[in-house]
Amino acid sequence: MNLRGVGVSPGIGHGPSFVLTVSVPEPPEGATYTGEAEQEKERAMVALQQVAGELEARGNQAGGEAGEILKAQALMAEDPGLVVKVRSLIDRGLAAPRAVFEAFSKYQDVLAGSGGYLGERAADVRDIRDRVIALLYGQALPGLPVAPEEPYVLVAKDLAPADTALLSRDDVVAFVTEEGGPTSHTAIMARSIGVPAVVACQGATRIQPGVQVMVDGTSGEVRVSPADADVADAVGAATARQAALASWTGPGATADGHPVPLLANIGGPAEIDAALAAGAEGIGLYRTEFLFLDRAEPPSLDEQVRAYRAALDAFPGGKVVVRMLDGGADKPLPFLTVPPEQNPALGERGLRLFKRAPEVMDVQLSALAAVAAPELQVMAPMVATAEEATWFARECADKGLLEVGVMIEIPSAALRAADVLSQVDFVSIGTNDLSQYAFAADRRLGAVSDLHDPWQPALLDLVAMVAGAAGRADKPCGVCGEAAADAALACVLAGLGVSSLSMAPSALAGVRAGLAAHTLEQCRAAAEAARAQPTAADARAAARVHLPGLARLGL
Amino acid sequence: MNLRGVGVSPGIGHGPSFVLTVSVPEPPEGATYTGEAEQEKERAMVALQQVAGELEARGNQAGGEAGEILKAQALMAEDPGLVVKVRSLIDRGLAAPRAVFEAFSKYQDVLAGSGGYLGERAADVRDIRDRVIALLYGQALPGLPVAPEEPYVLVAKDLAPADTALLSRDDVVAFVTEEGGPTSHTAIMARSIGVPAVVACQGATRIQPGVQVMVDGTSGEVRVSPADADVADAVGAATARQAALASWTGPGATADGHPVPLLANIGGPAEIDAALAAGAEGIGLYRTEFLFLDRAEPPSLDEQVRAYRAALDAFPGGKVVVRMLDGGADKPLPFLTVPPEQNPALGERGLRLFKRAPEVMDVQLSALAAVAAPELQVMAPMVATAEEATWFARECADKGLLEVGVMIEIPSAALRAADVLSQVDFVSIGTNDLSQYAFAADRRLGAVSDLHDPWQPALLDLVAMVAGAAGRADKPCGVCGEAAADAALACVLAGLGVSSLSMAPSALAGVRAGLAAHTLEQCRAAAEAARAQPTAADARAAARVHLPGLARLGL
Repeated sequence: MNLRGVGVSPGIGHGPSFVLTVSVPEPPEGATYTGEAEQEKERAMVALQQVAGELEARGNQAGGEAGEILKAQALMAEDPGLVVKVRSLIDRGLAAPRAVFEAFSKYQDVLAGSGGYLGERAADVRDIRDRVIALLYGQALPGLPVAPEEPYVLVAKDLAPADTALLSRDDVVAFVTEEGGPTSHTAIMARSIGVPAVVACQGATRIQPGVQVMVDGTSGEVRVSPADADVADAVGAATARQAALASWTGPGATADGHPVPLLANIGGPAEIDAALAAGAEGIGLYRTEFLFLDRAEPPSLDEQVRAYRAALDAFPGGKVVVRMLDGGADKPLPFLTVPPEQNPALGERGLRLFKRAPEVMDVQLSALAAVAAPELQVMAPMVATAEEATWFARECADKGLLEVGVMIEIPSAALRAADVLSQVDFVSIGTNDLSQYAFAADRRLGAVSDLHDPWQPALLDLVAMVAGAAGRADKPCGVCGEAAADAALACVLAGLGVSSLSMAPSALAGVRAGLAAHTLEQCRAAAEAARAQPTAADARAAARVHLPGLARLGL
Repeated sequence: MNLRGVGVSPGIGHGPSFVLTVSVPEPPEGATYTGEAEQEKERAMVALQQVAGELEARGNQAGGEAGEILKAQALMAEDPGLVVKVRSLIDRGLAAPRAVFEAFSKYQDVLAGSGGYLGERAADVRDIRDRVIALLYGQALPGLPVAPEEPYVLVAKDLAPADTALLSRDDVVAFVTEEGGPTSHTAIMARSIGVPAVVACQGATRIQPGVQVMVDGTSGEVRVSPADADVADAVGAATARQAALASWTGPGATADGHPVPLLANIGGPAEIDAALAAGAEGIGLYRTEFLFLDRAEPPSLDEQVRAYRAALDAFPGGKVVVRMLDGGADKPLPFLTVPPEQNPALGERGLRLFKRAPEVMDVQLSALAAVAAPELQVMAPMVATAEEATWFARECADKGLLEVGVMIEIPSAALRAADVLSQVDFVSIGTNDLSQYAFAADRRLGAVSDLHDPWQPALLDLVAMVAGAAGRADKPCGVCGEAAADAALACVLAGLGVSSLSMAPSALAGVRAGLAAHTLEQCRAAAEAARAQPTAADARAAARVHLPGLARLGL
């Protein structure tokens, strides 16, 4: 049996299937309760809180992106609108499980009907609903085998963050789901742990548990009980392709030797090993939020010094760019509270927050200064003007920090890159936020996702402005957004004058190979051709004409 | 007695004082209730809902900006966090009025302590608190005289939106408050109805009710029982200045005759008269939201035709630029619902929403086509790319509309102005939203208000890009944001190549006089000098050096 879906995380995975069937029964229609309404409401509230607490706890355990997703889900379980709805259904005589079922199902339908990113959140709501109902019925939820004897292909209707957060590559060789899309949690999770995945694969849950399955996360093909020879062929081809990419080793550079250091984005010390294994030349973006989240007090100076030194020790001689804490109203910290904002992405975030809490910045800068390594570079997030850059540079100078830069992730800072660069030693372009603001389109919102194509010519224009200004000032200009992870776009960025690229470790091999297959002149021609186009699709196509090596590499 | 505060709305106002003293008693500390906790909670909930309902109703009655503010306040009265707090205080034995007092006072203190825009919202929270407590005590709140025998100077500790929403220039000649700042509701309200105002004026509430008061909304001076001669002098000087500005009549143009048509921004037919009275040459921004808000169904084709035709009839021969409905998650319409968004300003707004509800766009375009006037220009809000402009232009062409444009209020559209202009007949720069996105700073958030200075060089850069592209394409480029209302900046915009300016009618006289006092060459020199600066303050100062006529005009 062969099935086909949408490949959302590349590679070949094969193994026995584990088919996840969550079967929480629907509470009978019109089910009522005996006793007081208040007691029944209390029962429902306790169950909702318990599920929220469990999700929150799993989120803390999982950490990183998966952790964030679980914590968002925990908030959903206590959404005031849903809570009010559940209470009012109980007041109207419905038993707690049925009230939860109706309130959450209604919300799930609304989400499902809205399509896009929100539609894909419908699975989260159903998952919370089923957990709460199971708890009210005293029923255990099926769990996934963690640390199984043999890694498996996980098959499900859809996967919720709670299902997958604790999985690793040791447990799962591939994901297949019937629902979901490229931005569903399954896809995000699979890419983040580097496991092949196929979503929107009809009929997947009819696969027999335990049979061998081969998943091609590039083509979207799912083969049930494949011939051994076919598995060997597919794995061989994938391995050969991976080996071909991996054969390009050493520092990042174009075919004619123009150096483009290839660095890794990391979110904490746990990710240093992956960066080293992928051959990163250093850390281009060290997000320091991990140190600050989920704690009542900010980390001490000593604790911070240890965390930063660990990264520097891992890359002797390679640069390590530490980004200062990027807090905001959407990720509240107990010691750095921000009043609720209507648009947290446009609010007191990043550097702006340090004006509210200078002591937090002070300790972080002191810790960085105490590390006292020449390879250490420090940069501030969310800088909009040269004045803000001046303020940050002065604070750093007061601590004796030598290499100070800023993120360019706000259009105004890109437009005034020369003014900003006159105040700091380097800049790093965060293409994700830069495109969010340049196109006034929320990064997390599926309905506007076409505007986030990193090939949008207006985004390339902004990168060109910054790289041009950096070139004239003779100062480094890196890129640390998702754009750097696309091998073709990486060539274009190099052609625009970007001096280093930082990305998820898993993308390094492809980018290294892509750069090495083209001269700087080809990269420049590709950049010029891309910028001459009016649309993202045209820009992508026009650039590739000048980058013939990509197709040869299977990129 | 003379007092001094901060002038936030210019002009001289004088008349008898009306001192608003709201005196809702503080419920006694530790006040308890008899009966069931649930009943007491119910009592509190009913009062909160009733106050929210009243604010909402007043909001609908007031309409416009005042209405929006009141509706935001209504939401605050039902804030889930506050509701939970009130309930839990009642559970702990406190009587409903005391529970409301404590919960809201705590929140008010947090707001007051945060300063800036949020600090100024503290008055709103106190106002809601007092209304709820008064309701729980069965007490009537003091009202303001509406349609009094003689217009009065309204004096108060601070004014809440609910106090002022229904006031007009016929009722009030000036506002004086002890608290508040330049972005408080009092200031916004006063400027919007064109009445002088002084805020942060200590001791104001000690003014005796009924005494004559003279308020200078420019200098911030408040004189109690002034001599008649002094009133005559001040009024005479203000009148003379106003007359001097008003003596510059006729179409907008520089001293050497370069035409810069001066148009009005309006939000509905009610504002047409003010635009005509101020000598507007047409309507540069006709916001059509007023037609769509607060109704279950969108307006019919006939109703829309009548509304658009009214504007065209008022300006025979003058252009009328109608902006299509600009909805979004932050101003939900029953017939055009958007799922809740984390950042509504970066979500499905404006043109994006029409992809969800093409029928709403269809009827509006059909109505505009039915008006069939050569002076009619139609433009789309929230256009980010040339592709979106193409789509909108095609939809308009299908209806037979002749003059089609787009707002340039997203940085990507400004960066790619040439691509966008190749698809449409004109563009209009919305500087308010453009600066919100270019600086990643919420327009409504006081904490980031320094980034909204319209003299920010990066904003001038974006305007220059668009005006330059429009000049090369030989197509009109207007500006319809607040920036156009600053006489100095209006000269700079003309110098950058902007071809028309649209503003609140009250700003037209100053801008007309400012333009007429300088040559196009002076405007260009001012623009060039401003753009050469690194900060907004430097830009403003550098431009004024080239615009000597402003000081002579008192501008």
